[in-house]
Amino acid sequence: MAAPITRQHERDSHLSPAAQQGWRRRAFDIVFGTDTRAGRAFDIMLMAAIVISVLVTMLDSVAALHARCGGVLRVAEWLLTALFTAEYILRLAVLARPLRYARSFYGLIDLVAILPSLTSLVLTGTEQLIGIRALRILRIFRVLKLARYVGAAEQMGDALKRSRRKIFVFIATMLILISVFGAIMYVVEGPAHGFTSIPRAMYWAAVTMATVGFGDIAPSTPLGQFITTIMILIGYGIIAVPTGIYAAEFTNSLNRAQLQRRCKACGWHGHETEARYCNHCGAALPAGMHAPH
Amino acid sequence: MAAPITRQHERDSHLSPAAQQGWRRRAFDIVFGTDTRAGRAFDIMLMAAIVISVLVTMLDSVAALHARCGGVLRVAEWLLTALFTAEYILRLAVLARPLRYARSFYGLIDLVAILPSLTSLVLTGTEQLIGIRALRILRIFRVLKLARYVGAAEQMGDALKRSRRKIFVFIATMLILISVFGAIMYVVEGPAHGFTSIPRAMYWAAVTMATVGFGDIAPSTPLGQFITTIMILIGYGIIAVPTGIYAAEFTNSLNRAQLQRRCKACGWHGHETEARYCNHCGAALPAGMHAPH
Amino acid sequence: MAAPITRQHERDSHLSPAAQQGWRRRAFDIVFGTDTRAGRAFDIMLMAAIVISVLVTMLDSVAALHARCGGVLRVAEWLLTALFTAEYILRLAVLARPLRYARSFYGLIDLVAILPSLTSLVLTGTEQLIGIRALRILRIFRVLKLARYVGAAEQMGDALKRSRRKIFVFIATMLILISVFGAIMYVVEGPAHGFTSIPRAMYWAAVTMATVGFGDIAPSTPLGQFITTIMILIGYGIIAVPTGIYAAEFTNSLNRAQLQRRCKACGWHGHETEARYCNHCGAALPAGMHAPH
Amino acid sequence: MAAPITRQHERDSHLSPAAQQGWRRRAFDIVFGTDTRAGRAFDIMLMAAIVISVLVTMLDSVAALHARCGGVLRVAEWLLTALFTAEYILRLAVLARPLRYARSFYGLIDLVAILPSLTSLVLTGTEQLIGIRALRILRIFRVLKLARYVGAAEQMGDALKRSRRKIFVFIATMLILISVFGAIMYVVEGPAHGFTSIPRAMYWAAVTMATVGFGDIAPSTPLGQFITTIMILIGYGIIAVPTGIYAAEFTNSLNRAQLQRRCKACGWHGHETEARYCNHCGAALPAGMHAPH
Repeated sequence: MAAPITRQHERDSHLSPAAQQGWRRRAFDIVFGTDTRAGRAFDIMLMAAIVISVLVTMLDSVAALHARCGGVLRVAEWLLTALFTAEYILRLAVLARPLRYARSFYGLIDLVAILPSLTSLVLTGTEQLIGIRALRILRIFRVLKLARYVGAAEQMGDALKRSRRKIFVFIATMLILISVFGAIMYVVEGPAHGFTSIPRAMYWAAVTMATVGFGDIAPSTPLGQFITTIMILIGYGIIAVPTGIYAAEFTNSLNRAQLQRRCKACGWHGHETEARYCNHCGAALPAGMHAPH
Repeated sequence: MAAPITRQHERDSHLSPAAQQGWRRRAFDIVFGTDTRAGRAFDIMLMAAIVISVLVTMLDSVAALHARCGGVLRVAEWLLTALFTAEYILRLAVLARPLRYARSFYGLIDLVAILPSLTSLVLTGTEQLIGIRALRILRIFRVLKLARYVGAAEQMGDALKRSRRKIFVFIATMLILISVFGAIMYVVEGPAHGFTSIPRAMYWAAVTMATVGFGDIAPSTPLGQFITTIMILIGYGIIAVPTGIYAAEFTNSLNRAQLQRRCKACGWHGHETEARYCNHCGAALPAGMHAPH
Repeated sequence: MAAPITRQHERDSHLSPAAQQGWRRRAFDIVFGTDTRAGRAFDIMLMAAIVISVLVTMLDSVAALHARCGGVLRVAEWLLTALFTAEYILRLAVLARPLRYARSFYGLIDLVAILPSLTSLVLTGTEQLIGIRALRILRIFRVLKLARYVGAAEQMGDALKRSRRKIFVFIATMLILISVFGAIMYVVEGPAHGFTSIPRAMYWAAVTMATVGFGDIAPSTPLGQFITTIMILIGYGIIAVPTGIYAAEFTNSLNRAQLQRRCKACGWHGHETEARYCNHCGAALPAGMHAPH
Repeated sequence: MAAPITRQHERDSHLSPAAQQGWRRRAFDIVFGTDTRAGRAFDIMLMAAIVISVLVTMLDSVAALHARCGGVLRVAEWLLTALFTAEYILRLAVLARPLRYARSFYGLIDLVAILPSLTSLVLTGTEQLIGIRALRILRIFRVLKLARYVGAAEQMGDALKRSRRKIFVFIATMLILISVFGAIMYVVEGPAHGFTSIPRAMYWAAVTMATVGFGDIAPSTPLGQFITTIMILIGYGIIAVPTGIYAAEFTNSLNRAQLQRRCKACGWHGHETEARYCNHCGAALPAGMHAPH
C-alpha cells in the first residue's frame, strides 16, 4: 500500500519543485512520467529501441553475421547510440539536480548504455574493443524500468525484500560449506585430478552443491566420490531453503491480500484477489487488492 | 466453480444450436461429448490409437528397428493415418461452423497429426521426410483432451493461470540475467574457450542458471569461474521463485477448498477435501469440493 | 487418525484369528508384531542383518575387494542367506494364510532377498550370475518396514498419497513435453549430433528438463541450442510444480495439526505440534498430535 | 521465545559461577560475551582475523601465488596462528571448567584452527603437509558464532530443527533409492560402461537423482537410458520433498509470528512482523516478534 507512494517520493526526490514548469515540466512528464499518454508512448518507443539495440549487439557478436552484414549492424548501432545519447542529455537537462540522477542506478545504466559505442569512436580497431562493445548489452537492465507497470513485479520484489535477511543467512551458509568442502576435496583429490587449488575446488563445490554439475572437474578417487555423495545430500537439504523462504513469503502475501478483501455486506473474507463479487452473499466487493478492506 | 461452466461454454461456442439435430447431433455427442457412454468409449479408443501411433513413430526412428520391422510399422502408420483422417473429416462434418474448429488449438493439432503422413504420400524417398514424419509425434498433445476427465488437472491449470503474471515477470528477469551474464562471460572467456558468440554464451548461461549444466561449454579462466560461482548463487536465489509461486497458489487453493467445506451442523470448517463426515460433530458433509459451502 | 487403525487391519487381514494361539501366536508376535519387547528386538536384529547383507553385496562388487577378501564375503553371504531363508520359512509357518503373505509386497521382497543366493547354489560360475547376485541389494527395501516406528514417515506418506493425482498429472505432462521436445530435437539436430533416435532424444529431453544435464548428448547447432533454452525455461516452470504440491500439502497438514491442538482452558489454538503447555494461558495441552482437539 | 534463554544456559553451563569475578570475569565478558561494547568489538576483530586467515589459506593453495608471494603469505599465517593460539589459551584460562569448552563444538573448531600450522612447525617439507595445512580453512566454521547476532539465522535454525525427523526420513528414502538404482544400473550397464562397482554406481545414482549430473559416468545402453529416465522422474518426485518441508515450516513460523502480533486496541491480527502500527486502527503495536501478543 505504502510502497507505490514511497516509490513516487523516491522518483520526485531528485527534482526540486521549482524546476517543474514550462517546457522542462512537460519534457519531464514525457521522459520520466508514466501517467500521461505521451509519457507512456515514450517509454514504449524507448523499450523498442533498447530491445533492438540488444539484438544488434547479440547478432554482431556472431562471427558469420558480423562478416556478412557488419555494415548494416554498424549503422544501426550508430543510430541507436545517437538516440540514447540524446535521451541521456535530455534527462539531465530537464532535471533540477542532474548529478543526483547521474549517480542513481538507472543513471549509471543509461551512461553505460552509450559509453562503449562512444569509446569506440576514439579508440578503433583494437581487439579489446570487441569485448568492451559487448557491454552495450548492459542497457538491457533499463527494461527493469518497466517493472513499475507490472503490479506482480512489485509484489514479488516486496516479498524478496522482506526475505533478504534470510537469503543473506542462506548465502553465508552456502559460502562456508563451499569453502569447507572445497578445501577437503583439494586435500582428498589433489591437483592430479583437476583440483589444482582451493579456489578452483571451491568453484567445483559451488557448481556441485547448486546441482549444476558441469563435469569439467569430477571426483575420481573412491573417497572423493563418497565425500561428494555426502556433500550432495547435505547440499540438497540446504539448497532447498530459499525456495521454502519464497514459498512462505508468497503464501503469506496472498493470504494477507485475501484477508483484506472482506465483504462489507456479510463479513465473509478469503476472496480471490481477482474476485469481483462476494462468493458468500453476492454483494459487490471493493475494487483492487490494495483497497483498505 | 465457474470454471467448468465456462469450459462448457467454450466448447459449445463453435456449434450453432441449429446444427444439433438428427445424426449430426448424435455423432456430435459421440465425437465431442464426454457425458454419454458412447462418447466416453470413443475418447478411450481414440486415446489408445494415439498412444499406439506415438509408439510407432518412436520405434520407427530407431535405425535397427526400422531396418528389421519397417514393413509392419509402415502398415500400422497407414491404418492409423486413415483412422485419424476419417476422424478429422467427421469432426468437421458434424460441426455447424467447421472453420472455427479447424483454427482452434485442438483443430490444428488434429490436422498436424495427419499432415506428415499424407505429405509422404506425395513426396517420397527424400531425407527431409524422416524429419517431417517424426512430427507425427505432435499428436500426443491430443492426450491433453483427457484433462477434462481429471479434476486435479483443472485445479492445477487454474493455479498456473492465476500465477501467469508472476511467471511472466520471472521469465523476463531470467532473460535479462541470461543476456547480461552471457555478454559478460563472452567478454571474459572469449571465443578461445568456447564462448564464440553472445547467443552461444547466453545458451550456456541459461543451461547454467537453470542448474542443468551440460558441460559442453565450461569456464576455464579463474575470473570466469569466479563469475560463474557468483552467477550460480544469484541464479539459485532467482530460480527458486517459480516454486515459491506455485507453492503459494496451491496452498491457497487447498485452504479455500477446505474453508468452503463447512459443517452445516456445527459450523466447524477446515475439513480435508476428501472427508465425508465432520471431524468435529460427525454430521455428513456436503459432497464434492465444488459444493457452494 | 484412522490411518494407523487401517494399517493394523491390513496387517491382520492375512491372519485368520484361529491361527492366533500356542507357539504360532507367540512366534507371530515376535516375527510380525511391534508391540512386544521380543518383537522389537527381532526387528532390530533383522535390520542389522539386512544392513550387513547390503554392505556385503556392495563390497563384493568392488573388484579389488572381491579379489582380496572374497572368501570372507562368501561366508558372510551364506550365513546371511541361511538366516533370511529360515526367517522366510518361519514367516510362512506362523501364518494361517501363508500364500496371502507370499504375494504381498514385503513377501515378494523377502523372497527376492534370498532367491539370487539360492540360485547361485544351483548355477555356478557364469558371468550372468554376478548381475543376478547384485540384486540381493533389493532386500534393502525391507528397511521400509521400519517406517511404522517413525511417525514423520507416516505423515509424509499420507501427504504424498493425498497429492498422488496431482503428481500423476505432473508426470503425464512431463512425458508429453519430453516426447514433443525429443521429437523436435531429433528433427533439428539429427543423428549426426548424437540424437540418433526419438527414444534417445527423449532420454536427453528427460535428463535436460529435470535439470540433470549429463552432457553425454548436447545440442550443437544454433537452432538446437535456442530450442534447448526455450525448453529449459518451460521445463523449469513445470518442474517446480511437484515442489509446490508438496509444500501445499505439508503446510496444510501442519496447519490442521495445529488447529486441532486447542487449549481447553482458554480456547487459544495454533500451538506447535510439540508444545506441552498453552502459550497463551499456561494450561497443559492434550497430549499427542492425533488428539481429537 | 524459550530458545535464547536455553542458549544462554548452554553458554553458562561450562562456567562455574565462582569463576565469575575479578579479571577473569571481565576477560570472560570480552571473550565469550556479546552484551558489552568490548565483547562485540572482540567478536568483530576476531571475525576479521578469521576471514583474512581463510583468504590466506585459499591464496596459498594457488601454485602461481604461492611461488610469487609465498613469503608474505607465510608471515601472515604465522601472525594469525600466534593470534589464534593466544586466543585459545585465553579462552581456556578464563573458564572454570576449560575441558568442557575444549570438548565442545566450537572448542574443537578453535583447536583445529591452530593445529595444522603448529604441526608444520614440527614436521616440515613433506608433501602431505600441503594437504594438512589446507585444513586451516575449517576455522571458517567459527563464523557460525556470528549467528547469535542474526535473528533470521535463529528462526531458520529452529525451522530446520523442527523438520529434522522429516529430513531424516527423506535422506533414508534417498539412500534406499540410490542403493537400489545403483545396483540395477550396475547389473544393466556393467563395468564396460563405467559402472565398475555398486559403490561407484551408487555415486552415479546420487549425482543423478540430486540433478547434479556431472556426466563423468553416463548410461550408454538403451535399457540403461530408459531406467535412468524412470529414475529421474521418480527421483524428481522425491527430491522435491525437502523443499516442501521447509516451505511448510517457514510458512508456519511466519503465520505464528503474525498471529501473535495482535493489536491491543482493536484486536486485529495478521500484521507483518516488521509493522509498527496496526493497519486496521493505527494504534502502536507491541515491539518485537517475540512479544507475547
